[in-house]
Amino acid sequence: MTAPFRERLTARIRETGSLLCAGIDPVAASLPAGLSGGDGLRTFVTRLLGALKPHVAAVKPNLAFFEAFGEAGRRVLGDIPALAAPVPVILDAKLADIGNTSARYAEAFLGEGGFDAITVNPYLGSDSVGPFLEYRDKGVFLLCLTSNPGSADLQQQPMADGRPLFLHTAELIRAWNRQYGNAGAVAGATKAEELTRIRAILPEEVLLVPGVGAQGGDLETVLRLAVGDALRPALINASRSLIYASPGADFAEAAEAEAAGMVRAMRTVLPALAGGS
Amino acid sequence: MTAPFRERLTARIRETGSLLCAGIDPVAASLPAGLSGGDGLRTFVTRLLGALKPHVAAVKPNLAFFEAFGEAGRRVLGDIPALAAPVPVILDAKLADIGNTSARYAEAFLGEGGFDAITVNPYLGSDSVGPFLEYRDKGVFLLCLTSNPGSADLQQQPMADGRPLFLHTAELIRAWNRQYGNAGAVAGATKAEELTRIRAILPEEVLLVPGVGAQGGDLETVLRLAVGDALRPALINASRSLIYASPGADFAEAAEAEAAGMVRAMRTVLPALAGGS
Repeated sequence: MTAPFRERLTARIRETGSLLCAGIDPVAASLPAGLSGGDGLRTFVTRLLGALKPHVAAVKPNLAFFEAFGEAGRRVLGDIPALAAPVPVILDAKLADIGNTSARYAEAFLGEGGFDAITVNPYLGSDSVGPFLEYRDKGVFLLCLTSNPGSADLQQQPMADGRPLFLHTAELIRAWNRQYGNAGAVAGATKAEELTRIRAILPEEVLLVPGVGAQGGDLETVLRLAVGDALRPALINASRSLIYASPGADFAEAAEAEAAGMVRAMRTVLPALAGGS
Repeated sequence: MTAPFRERLTARIRETGSLLCAGIDPVAASLPAGLSGGDGLRTFVTRLLGALKPHVAAVKPNLAFFEAFGEAGRRVLGDIPALAAPVPVILDAKLADIGNTSARYAEAFLGEGGFDAITVNPYLGSDSVGPFLEYRDKGVFLLCLTSNPGSADLQQQPMADGRPLFLHTAELIRAWNRQYGNAGAVAGATKAEELTRIRAILPEEVLLVPGVGAQGGDLETVLRLAVGDALRPALINASRSLIYASPGADFAEAAEAEAAGMVRAMRTVLPALAGGS
């Protein structure tokens, strides 16, 4: 019996002293020189995972980028849980369908040999999320607020009570997490106030925060608001800044150095991360 | 140069006198006796498509059901556009990601040899939908209102103006359709009033209506409200009632008979469908 995702993730954060999640979003045209096609993708991903492993709390491959490589891409994606072990792997899929159909996705992606967690779109509501939650040892990250401009179209729109839609989504996520303790939220907050409001509704849930720059005040603000000295569970995702840290043959070493730098920056803001507790 | 999806679809509706969309949602445990695994799936889908072809305006395979068959399932799915031709094929994927990432999905599913249309989740807004719309000859069906119980959680929630969220989504779809004329809406309306309100916002857009029973008042209500004597473009989807019309070796013939019955029922409500115009 595997421990629940949340336990494994928080243990991993303590062991590594890192909240870093490495987004694995490979693009054919951006593979380092000498690497191409399915074989090039496999080499790229295998070497990246090997180099990043000591520095990350989790890795997050995005389904779309592997789909773009066709069948070979799907094979490499399917091997990531084995390649990354013991690092938990979150499949960034952002999908969902009505209950009966979501169950097929849950089986395909969270079933035997599958991923440790998945991102899910909340637009279809409870019965579309339920089949993922039923994999109780897995993590389910619901999109709450995304960091793209289009988040203004629906997520930021005011509801009847004056609050934006994403806070209603946060309340749904809280209710979903109460069931088995395995629901978290994608919180792509670009403003401190948004992250504060999400954390107020989801004080203990795991937040997955994308799109934070490696340097500067962004990271500090996010860490103080989403994690704090109590080390509330969160993952800070970085993708391109890691996997394309160098366009040359030293891409893996460059990714590792970049990741180590981000982890150092996290520990500067939150000394409790560095351990000793 | 292929004609735009909307033109091909409306021509097909006129030629066949049918608004029927056949949902292809195969489940391993429900394949007819003697069929199993990837080969069984291929036989099942090939025979179904052959039998249904004369009676349907479109077919709609759902990604989740093919994912559940693994690599073999994905291969059969990829062959459906060729197997179904000249019937337009809508990939029911209900996905979306931020702009850069949606572009990978759009390329993978709508690019060369790909599908004629796709269903997309609107929660991430304009930049997540844009890369699909850029395939101007393809159709993009946005989830507006789904027919599952979970639609109450977000889609039916009242916004600041008192209207439910799904009507705001409908207005976004109208704006997205104005760009290249290739956006439509999934309108899983279970109440006549809901369908009327969606049609009022989207008078000319193609509506994809799931979950309508073959018999009785449901079909009649949907046809009168969504299509009418003006034959406004819509697709009425049926899945399980067609593909599992018989559990035996005569599954394809039974599916054909069921489809023909649904088309007759449609023409009874809307005599204009039967042609002569």
